[in-house]
Amino acid sequence: MRSDDKRGQRTQSYSLNKAREVLDRRELMKLGAAGLGAAVVGTSGLAEAATEPGKDGAFGIGLPAGLSESGRIHLQAPQLGMVPHHPLSADPIETVRVGYVGVGLQGSGHCRNLLRIPGARLSAVCDIIPEKVERWQRQVVEAGFPEPTGYSDGPWDFIRMCEEEDLDLVYTATPWEWHVPVMLAAMENGKHAASEIPAAYTIEDCWKLVEAAEKYNKHCVMMENCNYDRPELMVFNMVRQGMFGELLHAECGYLHDLRGIKFENRNEGLWRREHSILRNGNLYPTHGLGPIANCMDIDRGDRFEYLVSMSSPSRGLQEYATANFPESDPRRDEQYALGDVNVSLIKTAHGRTIYLSHDTNLPRPYSRIHMLQGTKGIFQGYPNRVYFDDFGRGHRWIDDEGYEYENEHYDLARIREQYEHPIINELRDQSEGAGHGGMDYVEDYRLIKCLNEGLPTDTNVYWAASLSAVCELTEISVANGSTPVEFPDFTRGRWRSYPRLEIVHA
Amino acid sequence: MRSDDKRGQRTQSYSLNKAREVLDRRELMKLGAAGLGAAVVGTSGLAEAATEPGKDGAFGIGLPAGLSESGRIHLQAPQLGMVPHHPLSADPIETVRVGYVGVGLQGSGHCRNLLRIPGARLSAVCDIIPEKVERWQRQVVEAGFPEPTGYSDGPWDFIRMCEEEDLDLVYTATPWEWHVPVMLAAMENGKHAASEIPAAYTIEDCWKLVEAAEKYNKHCVMMENCNYDRPELMVFNMVRQGMFGELLHAECGYLHDLRGIKFENRNEGLWRREHSILRNGNLYPTHGLGPIANCMDIDRGDRFEYLVSMSSPSRGLQEYATANFPESDPRRDEQYALGDVNVSLIKTAHGRTIYLSHDTNLPRPYSRIHMLQGTKGIFQGYPNRVYFDDFGRGHRWIDDEGYEYENEHYDLARIREQYEHPIINELRDQSEGAGHGGMDYVEDYRLIKCLNEGLPTDTNVYWAASLSAVCELTEISVANGSTPVEFPDFTRGRWRSYPRLEIVHA
Repeated sequence: MRSDDKRGQRTQSYSLNKAREVLDRRELMKLGAAGLGAAVVGTSGLAEAATEPGKDGAFGIGLPAGLSESGRIHLQAPQLGMVPHHPLSADPIETVRVGYVGVGLQGSGHCRNLLRIPGARLSAVCDIIPEKVERWQRQVVEAGFPEPTGYSDGPWDFIRMCEEEDLDLVYTATPWEWHVPVMLAAMENGKHAASEIPAAYTIEDCWKLVEAAEKYNKHCVMMENCNYDRPELMVFNMVRQGMFGELLHAECGYLHDLRGIKFENRNEGLWRREHSILRNGNLYPTHGLGPIANCMDIDRGDRFEYLVSMSSPSRGLQEYATANFPESDPRRDEQYALGDVNVSLIKTAHGRTIYLSHDTNLPRPYSRIHMLQGTKGIFQGYPNRVYFDDFGRGHRWIDDEGYEYENEHYDLARIREQYEHPIINELRDQSEGAGHGGMDYVEDYRLIKCLNEGLPTDTNVYWAASLSAVCELTEISVANGSTPVEFPDFTRGRWRSYPRLEIVHA
Repeated sequence: MRSDDKRGQRTQSYSLNKAREVLDRRELMKLGAAGLGAAVVGTSGLAEAATEPGKDGAFGIGLPAGLSESGRIHLQAPQLGMVPHHPLSADPIETVRVGYVGVGLQGSGHCRNLLRIPGARLSAVCDIIPEKVERWQRQVVEAGFPEPTGYSDGPWDFIRMCEEEDLDLVYTATPWEWHVPVMLAAMENGKHAASEIPAAYTIEDCWKLVEAAEKYNKHCVMMENCNYDRPELMVFNMVRQGMFGELLHAECGYLHDLRGIKFENRNEGLWRREHSILRNGNLYPTHGLGPIANCMDIDRGDRFEYLVSMSSPSRGLQEYATANFPESDPRRDEQYALGDVNVSLIKTAHGRTIYLSHDTNLPRPYSRIHMLQGTKGIFQGYPNRVYFDDFGRGHRWIDDEGYEYENEHYDLARIREQYEHPIINELRDQSEGAGHGGMDYVEDYRLIKCLNEGLPTDTNVYWAASLSAVCELTEISVANGSTPVEFPDFTRGRWRSYPRLEIVHA
């Protein structure tokens, strides 16, 4: 098939208006909610729905759905091939030739990192805005490397890039609706794939990524930079050293006043607000949940079993538009589906609990909450502090300021000295000045290193799917009055044997 | 009926072993969970269950239950009389004669307060331990008042006190399982009733309190002291002044490492651990939720509509016993139903969301979370800090330390100066040194003042029932895999018209 045909065909299924389809889906969900007390319930639901493939399930989602025996919404999984016994380790690649798709704000940050990582080469750059492509072609040459090929012939030119260019990795920082098409095109054409977050925002798309990664034997990595932030890495290191005992509970979220950004006439303002118009759930779960998932060995020892979700009323964006734009501005007439605060509870297979929050439309300081609790201690972020049963003074946090007790000083610096993740010091100089306090460099460095050395990536396609699935699962629960919704098991049971993430190095 | 008969009869329904009944109930709940996908669902459930009065509903609770049309567990309400058009205002009482039941740790604190409140008189004291009664009789005399009558003839002697003593108010600080029997005896015998928290811990008992308060036209108040703590009162004052705009979301809880207390051989250690053995849910919701409920006008403008709840595994108490007691200690063999962390989401009729946590078995510093968020700003406790859209510097908390911005200093002291609740200063001297930083005095003062002046109490029986109902509602949701459970509407619709709590004074 020629790329022109592909492009035409794909415009049907993936377009910048794809988010609009979600609206129709939401409407169906509302119908689904009524169905809960009616027809579907009382049978397994699943089998019944499965007899009508292609038809939307009772809960208005693309995959057949029903109520499980335990009263949860259960989405039927597609029939895929065998799931690998071990997470993918590809052949080592001496120099990883990267094709970058979407070199706006965040993509440019990653490109800057890639120029500074020895084992990577920026070989191709793709963006719908030709000037951005040209700027990056110049910058690569100025840095002393061969000029990357530019792709800027419309929104689907990444397909041509994937087909024609000799690349090892395609890495996308496009608007959300393009992550999956870019990664699928990459894997179908023999390239590894990496994406900004979320990797996908429908369950169907999560399954497509899993299917493609298994079929083409390629890495498909969601680049969650907060996995590599300094406090998150320290906590992970402390977990591995058993400081918290058995993990039982965590709290996390993405609490970020994005009102200004959502209404900008540039960058994310051009597309991100659309999701707030059309969707009601947790649109951005992975910054908070990613590091927690690593600590709890999600899809590699434990897994997310089900969630319940609830949204507050939607007021913040409307009030912001009214307060800041003239009466003639059409943005004042927009209606937003997204509840200002969305809150969810997740249960893991081992019975652990997670509280997850999403809050992007209201005035507040930034937080990812970052709380992790076990039988022996607890870490709480924003501000950072720890508490252990047998360390320091009872009932008092060890924080930045700290305290004196029995001639000992207890503060976070002391904790950090002992438990800092080693990669922080190993990459201190290189990561200096990189995006988001340096963590973006660490994540890019680790991806390239794993490809260079033929190692499994720090997180894999199953992790990307389970974390991204939270988007639509919360939307389904919200649309169905907080009914519990089961997570798909993207690993089809392999979560029991896949090895956990260990302490990684530079 | 003579009190001896009553005592014999009541021992059937209320005993110190009542908590054991809850265990059987929990077992039924597990059966109920299976029922969710089976028999009950598909009909309204309710009508069906209602045809079998006296039989436990499908979800294993005392009241008939079924699934509502929206897929939530719905508990059928009993048939009561007319609900009053206005919250009760009783005739003014110049000097409130109080009979106190349970003068242990917390009860003694309240008795000390009552001695210092001019409009109150401690007229009777009841406790199962005669020495405690005698001590309080002496203390009252030493304070210059007539000796109160002592009641200490077994656990049911409060009935004799309610029957024989001229009292205006019976106030109980007994173990939880005695709150309802004491308050019912009080109201049946023409006395107002007040109780330590929770007022009740079954839905059935919540209804009994409502029924009795309406039937006998008596106050029935749950004494939630945290309603009167300084930060909570300031936040309430700020809410009334519109500082947060429209309220949308709150987070609260009771996070208190009680392992030591639960295992003590005195005070609460004698009975509180039993609840952790038998019940899995939120055992103690009102410290965090009470102040939030006042801010959100619960049962007087808005109401709790439904909740979902989830519990972590139970490890903390077992590990504590193993670590601290010799091998021969029978407490090492105890099994605990209570998940160490219980988390819940509550939805109100106006669509607001509340995150509620309960965490009493793990090492951690104390917190009630105390977060309240609206369209214009947010308060977050532990440590206290505020943030407003149009005040101070963007994206930065105003906390104790504060910051300089454009030649202005922004810190909490400045906020407090402007928004301190007036009663804090009005009662500063009197409340000095009273329990829990003085708030226990303020709550006792307000109760007596309302009775003295014939005003409605700050909170009423409906508030007590709705807040206490969280105990069993969370247990039901946990036992049914986090299925949403509807709150009973104890006000039967009057929540729409009952007036909100205003700023009260000394």
